[in-house]
Amino acid sequence: MAGPSVSPEIDRLITLLARLPGLGPRSARRAALHLLKAPDKLMTPLASAMTIAADRISTCSVCANVDSANPCHICTAPGRDQTAICVVQDVSDLWAMERAGAFRGTYHVLGGTLSALDGIRPEDLNIAALIGRVSAGKTEEVILAMNATVDGQTTAHYITEHLEKTGARVSRLAHGVPIGGELDYLDDGTIAAAMKSRRLL
Amino acid sequence: MAGPSVSPEIDRLITLLARLPGLGPRSARRAALHLLKAPDKLMTPLASAMTIAADRISTCSVCANVDSANPCHICTAPGRDQTAICVVQDVSDLWAMERAGAFRGTYHVLGGTLSALDGIRPEDLNIAALIGRVSAGKTEEVILAMNATVDGQTTAHYITEHLEKTGARVSRLAHGVPIGGELDYLDDGTIAAAMKSRRLL
Repeated sequence: MAGPSVSPEIDRLITLLARLPGLGPRSARRAALHLLKAPDKLMTPLASAMTIAADRISTCSVCANVDSANPCHICTAPGRDQTAICVVQDVSDLWAMERAGAFRGTYHVLGGTLSALDGIRPEDLNIAALIGRVSAGKTEEVILAMNATVDGQTTAHYITEHLEKTGARVSRLAHGVPIGGELDYLDDGTIAAAMKSRRLL
Repeated sequence: MAGPSVSPEIDRLITLLARLPGLGPRSARRAALHLLKAPDKLMTPLASAMTIAADRISTCSVCANVDSANPCHICTAPGRDQTAICVVQDVSDLWAMERAGAFRGTYHVLGGTLSALDGIRPEDLNIAALIGRVSAGKTEEVILAMNATVDGQTTAHYITEHLEKTGARVSRLAHGVPIGGELDYLDDGTIAAAMKSRRLL
């Protein structure tokens, strides 16, 4: 990938780096050179961090979070509300929720959204396990925190329907003007949603 | 970096990935998740490629290329013209020249350019070794292939001056219209250079 006279070790490094999301062939070459210039300060520590992560990190059998413990630290934390489950598309969304620090319950990671276009059906996602968890009885509220996209909302709708008979409350995140957002730059749908859900002051 | 409830192993992986050029905190989190989802197919092979590269790759003592051999494969290749040295700023430029396949001599990697703004002086670059190589006598032509930027051209000028007494021919890459380039999108300097160096058909 770097050229015909590049040593195979470097070529393999570039090829593998190029498979990371966000790195194309050019940025993979840049990243490889950066690593080669700092073998002790960056390349070896990163290699060891990867080996350790590959060895210790697994998917939580309860919520599908990734963690060094199974069930994960969030599922077993004594301080967290076991009666509330926040359903997210991906682990990155779980991380985003945790960074916001606005939720102290447990999570359920779906692993994607339903998508007719990409052929993703309910059985391809972690939905059956969610219904099982909620049906077990302890859950009082399920908060759907999927992306506000068509696929995200389709998935939310599907889950809502299938949770009806469990008796748990099902809610979703509010739609509205983002904090710091300027009306002039917002799409009509968001403005309409914000107007509809306006709050008395 | 990913949040307070992320395991330290994942956090360390994200922190180190974020130090790669082109990856910010968000894309480092994405890359880490991508790796965690493919431990056997990507994370372990990449870790091992890094360990192997850190172990085997070093800087060529002749030309400052990075390679598993020292002197590097280009410096010692029997088929390559030892009387021509192409001077480049960085190893990535050497790779670019090799991909183009338009040069069959040897290289010399400077490791940057002179820069008054960044305080980079001739002794910070691999220039003395170049003058030494050329003074040793075998070199007939030195081709300066620095970037066509102010710093690149300052560096080229400095090197030209210091190679004068060696008797070697010093040349630089041609300036002109890039292949596939549209005149309307080119800067005035490039058009002027292309006009000045026009060729009879």
